[in-house]
Amino acid sequence: MTKEMDCSIRFEPSGRVVKVTRGMTVIRAARLAGLHVNSSCGGTGVCGKCRVQVISGEVLGGKSEKLSSDELADGVRLACTAKLEGDIVVRLLDTVGLRKGQLGTEVPLRHRAAMHSFDISKVKQEGLFIPPVEKFYLELSRPDQSDHQADAGRLIRSLKDQYGERHIHIGLSVLRELRTALREDDFKVTATIARPVNKGSRARMMQVQPGNWSVRNFGLAIDIGTTTVYGQLIDKHSGEIITESGEYNKQISYGEDVISRMVYAENSDGLRKMHELVTESLNNVISNMLARCDVNGDEVTSVTLAGNTTMTHLLLELQPHNIRRSPYVPVSTFFPPLRSNDLGLKFSSHAMALLYPAVSSYVGGDIVAGVMGSGMYRSEKTTLYIDIGTNAEIVIGNKDWLVCAACSAGPAFEGGGIEHGMRAAPGAIDDFSIDPDTLDPMIITIGQKPAIGICGSGLLLLVAGLFENNVIDQSGKFNRALDSWRIRSGRSGYEYVLVQAEETGNDRDIVLTEVDIDNFIRAKGAIYSGVMTLLNEVGLTVNDLEQVILAGAFGSYLDLDSAIIVGLLPDLEPGKILYVGNGSLMGCRMSELSNHIRRDVVEVIHRLTSFELSETLSYQDQYVASLFLPHTDASLFPSVAKRMKRTGAESADTRFE
Amino acid sequence: MTKEMDCSIRFEPSGRVVKVTRGMTVIRAARLAGLHVNSSCGGTGVCGKCRVQVISGEVLGGKSEKLSSDELADGVRLACTAKLEGDIVVRLLDTVGLRKGQLGTEVPLRHRAAMHSFDISKVKQEGLFIPPVEKFYLELSRPDQSDHQADAGRLIRSLKDQYGERHIHIGLSVLRELRTALREDDFKVTATIARPVNKGSRARMMQVQPGNWSVRNFGLAIDIGTTTVYGQLIDKHSGEIITESGEYNKQISYGEDVISRMVYAENSDGLRKMHELVTESLNNVISNMLARCDVNGDEVTSVTLAGNTTMTHLLLELQPHNIRRSPYVPVSTFFPPLRSNDLGLKFSSHAMALLYPAVSSYVGGDIVAGVMGSGMYRSEKTTLYIDIGTNAEIVIGNKDWLVCAACSAGPAFEGGGIEHGMRAAPGAIDDFSIDPDTLDPMIITIGQKPAIGICGSGLLLLVAGLFENNVIDQSGKFNRALDSWRIRSGRSGYEYVLVQAEETGNDRDIVLTEVDIDNFIRAKGAIYSGVMTLLNEVGLTVNDLEQVILAGAFGSYLDLDSAIIVGLLPDLEPGKILYVGNGSLMGCRMSELSNHIRRDVVEVIHRLTSFELSETLSYQDQYVASLFLPHTDASLFPSVAKRMKRTGAESADTRFE
Repeated sequence: MTKEMDCSIRFEPSGRVVKVTRGMTVIRAARLAGLHVNSSCGGTGVCGKCRVQVISGEVLGGKSEKLSSDELADGVRLACTAKLEGDIVVRLLDTVGLRKGQLGTEVPLRHRAAMHSFDISKVKQEGLFIPPVEKFYLELSRPDQSDHQADAGRLIRSLKDQYGERHIHIGLSVLRELRTALREDDFKVTATIARPVNKGSRARMMQVQPGNWSVRNFGLAIDIGTTTVYGQLIDKHSGEIITESGEYNKQISYGEDVISRMVYAENSDGLRKMHELVTESLNNVISNMLARCDVNGDEVTSVTLAGNTTMTHLLLELQPHNIRRSPYVPVSTFFPPLRSNDLGLKFSSHAMALLYPAVSSYVGGDIVAGVMGSGMYRSEKTTLYIDIGTNAEIVIGNKDWLVCAACSAGPAFEGGGIEHGMRAAPGAIDDFSIDPDTLDPMIITIGQKPAIGICGSGLLLLVAGLFENNVIDQSGKFNRALDSWRIRSGRSGYEYVLVQAEETGNDRDIVLTEVDIDNFIRAKGAIYSGVMTLLNEVGLTVNDLEQVILAGAFGSYLDLDSAIIVGLLPDLEPGKILYVGNGSLMGCRMSELSNHIRRDVVEVIHRLTSFELSETLSYQDQYVASLFLPHTDASLFPSVAKRMKRTGAESADTRFE
Repeated sequence: MTKEMDCSIRFEPSGRVVKVTRGMTVIRAARLAGLHVNSSCGGTGVCGKCRVQVISGEVLGGKSEKLSSDELADGVRLACTAKLEGDIVVRLLDTVGLRKGQLGTEVPLRHRAAMHSFDISKVKQEGLFIPPVEKFYLELSRPDQSDHQADAGRLIRSLKDQYGERHIHIGLSVLRELRTALREDDFKVTATIARPVNKGSRARMMQVQPGNWSVRNFGLAIDIGTTTVYGQLIDKHSGEIITESGEYNKQISYGEDVISRMVYAENSDGLRKMHELVTESLNNVISNMLARCDVNGDEVTSVTLAGNTTMTHLLLELQPHNIRRSPYVPVSTFFPPLRSNDLGLKFSSHAMALLYPAVSSYVGGDIVAGVMGSGMYRSEKTTLYIDIGTNAEIVIGNKDWLVCAACSAGPAFEGGGIEHGMRAAPGAIDDFSIDPDTLDPMIITIGQKPAIGICGSGLLLLVAGLFENNVIDQSGKFNRALDSWRIRSGRSGYEYVLVQAEETGNDRDIVLTEVDIDNFIRAKGAIYSGVMTLLNEVGLTVNDLEQVILAGAFGSYLDLDSAIIVGLLPDLEPGKILYVGNGSLMGCRMSELSNHIRRDVVEVIHRLTSFELSETLSYQDQYVASLFLPHTDASLFPSVAKRMKRTGAESADTRFE
């Protein structure tokens, strides 16, 4: 999943060098280097402001009618449309860095969380590479006058003799095919065995095939998101991912959040409908993957799924009614092992389906999968695992203890409740910086499309950038003293104009209002105060956190500096902050490859102490204290105080300290 | 199942008294007393020979135009149509006993095996009364702000707290109903729990009902016979049988024996057809029972079934092909626990179905059920358990060891291969004795119908009676020297005329031929030699047998003296011989009431050493030695030698000793 950083780009006059992936635009590379380039159109080449001069090397594109023929001849290009093809050196023209005479090290390099990856070779080394469903090739003795053992007993005896496998349960469907299967290739067969989660229980014979098929053993890992369903097809023989696929959860047409899905499920036949929709999405994702590879559905012997508690209930057709009603009780947090076709999955008649258990109504199997997949449950380091979304789930702990909570951050990070907010889709402003003097923005959109709104990661950079440059104060209010047309009084109070109507994709000025900022602060405050409350409940402080693991799409694109500046994440060394991407999917994959994970998870669930924040006394105080940038208690954010000083506005200094 | 012996009858002049059940005919009572009364018409009142005089007490019926008015006035009645209503004294007129001056004790009293009954109170005393499926009434705590436990976890916690029950698996179907079930009667519910066979495995939650239904817990015991399906409905709360029912196995229209069923099952769709037919029979038997009682199908929580290996395979749709082909290998001898509806049983959506495991292709679950139900597997006494039929199954052993074998006796005991043989149905001669002087028979038919043939129990009495009275010799050949029109040369050699055409129900002389006798001797020889071979294999002799348990319908009607005289059963004290009736059904009932039986059976199956007689060297010798009456080795039958002496024919003495 990690792309190779194969191009090097040096920016003059600062001399800053970053390594990026081939095909990235020069403007994004500049942002990675922490450099500001004015750009108001979002990277579509319309405003023509982001001019750079290519000094050595070649770029693809970047030419524009905004550039004169002399400029073109001198290697001047638009940074927003010029793409890297190899190592280059470029000079920024007309930038804040130039005007201010800043050089090199004074511009902070941006921090992204490092990838916390899953190491299959380590799992193998530790002897934990034992998939929950395995295939065994067997050569049985033929029955004769001195050996009348029944077919089933003969098979079980052979499994014991050849592999030491004992206590195998054979169900009716296998028994019905057994006589034929044994005799088709002269008593040479491949037996598919599903191991039990509980040691005392019996393993289960899933299938008996004539001949040797032991290397054809595949698994599926599936994350059932409220928005999107992601799948991976895994070779259980090698441990490798063969392919992956994702698509919208079809339930989305009945509401974007879990609450509206639950409300719909209470209609007559609504639960069945919700089940059918998600099943359809799962079947699509699975068949897309199978269509791409030389793998037959019947060769997939198991699937592990994880989702939040509501998604899991809807998939299993369990009544979710009390998940959304106080005191928020799900039907179950543990889900029985099933046949995949019991779930309506169509790829195989015999594959086993496993669902990650949940902790509570709002800390679901997706989070548990992340805790398992990230390995934090057996780490020495006290770790904060956090999945940021409309509902943010927080887990803190290590190999000895674990606590968790869910907090309702609201939809700000997904563009909800923000006047020009939107999901991370083409045209969404996802990157931003500000010229501290002119207050002109550097705007980059997803897909180099004209801007039509602001997505979560853009919002974070906006609020952080405005705050860091004293455009807004600690409570998120605009500095009325600033002299810029971009700060103006709008319908809902003061606002900052990001893009003027004529440069947008929807003919409306795109602005960020004080109401938007307030919503953002409430969202980040809910999350930070959740972390603080949990720490408080176990008698720790942020300084005791040795590691932070960010899960979810938002986590992987998160600008760490901005997240710390606004007080979304605790003020830790960026090196301590990792991201796992789709932690839920990673946990599912782990379960497909190591039966130990499935055993450990039962113990982990019992170890995980769940806090209901709304009923935890200190939460409200923590929340109120978090409704500032970055926090009312500045001592919690020493690096931010230092940074504010460096950016220099005296007023900011006095305000903040 | 045991009828009360509530009438006493004394026969003069012998003075012999027997106790019988009300409604029995006087002629049957005479036979029980070991007395001969001439009667050639089978008990229909036509021949008028069986006259008795009622000296005290009253009988119902017995009047006939064959009797003069004086006779009627003197209390003379026909024994075959006179039924007992209370204690009486009757005088036999014109009988062999009278003519010979025999009195009392010289006439041997007939022996029937005593009933070996199932003692539920003993099971309760031993603490083994733990049905495999139990119902528990629970009052759960309601969820509140301080208790967010999921519905499923709450239920499990309550089962642990209130009953100490742990490790419960809850499947999807129960989870789907759980939220509603808990809330319908304010968190008061009845949980139905199926216990596992293996101690390490999990118990399974079958159902959750709102309210208290713990006393409404019923079970079914079902014997799947090749000919007949029998069922019992059991109250698992009290342990009592509520009702029972039986009907023909509908497969019978595709052949009477297991081989023809297996042959049919190999046709395309034949296996499914066989499955459907037996399922239909089972559903009929079950719905008949339920219709009779105030029990709803959904209140039946489990069913235990036993049948021979072929019947079990056909019920489960397992391919029986190799059961009938050397080396006779079934698909499986253990059968997984199922839902009753997996078998096509329709009474309930959730009941558990358990099938008794088999030992081999020809020692099936019905025999194993008998071994369990009779308790021989935990008896100190070395026991012979034997189920006599076309295929006779033999088990020998005690609590320490068990051996078994099946032998093909042929259909003689069911009337097959006998010229006038028939099943035990109305008109079948089922009781017989012979006047040693005149060789006239005493014939009794089932249902007091004119004779149309001879059933198995009649055949046994016939051969034994003829042999004991020297009408046939040790090799089953008629004594040509006897002067009686009843012994004549027929189409297939010599024969004995039982009933002349005019007194039959089918206008043909009913005879017993030397070929019939030869077939009978082969049948009884096969069984006896099976017993001897098994004993031989474990280094024992018949004298080591401390108990014999007869199973099956044939066993319950078996005349022990006759069985020993012909050498079908070993020459043991009649008091050591018991019958269990339908042993398979008894075993099923035991399993419904005691989960220990289900656990023990796994161990018993592994302890049971199965011998394939056709591959046991000594069997052929034993068989040849058994092809005499009672056996070539007279020392094995000391009581018979004594008896032959007493009956007095010198020729017999010299022949036999």
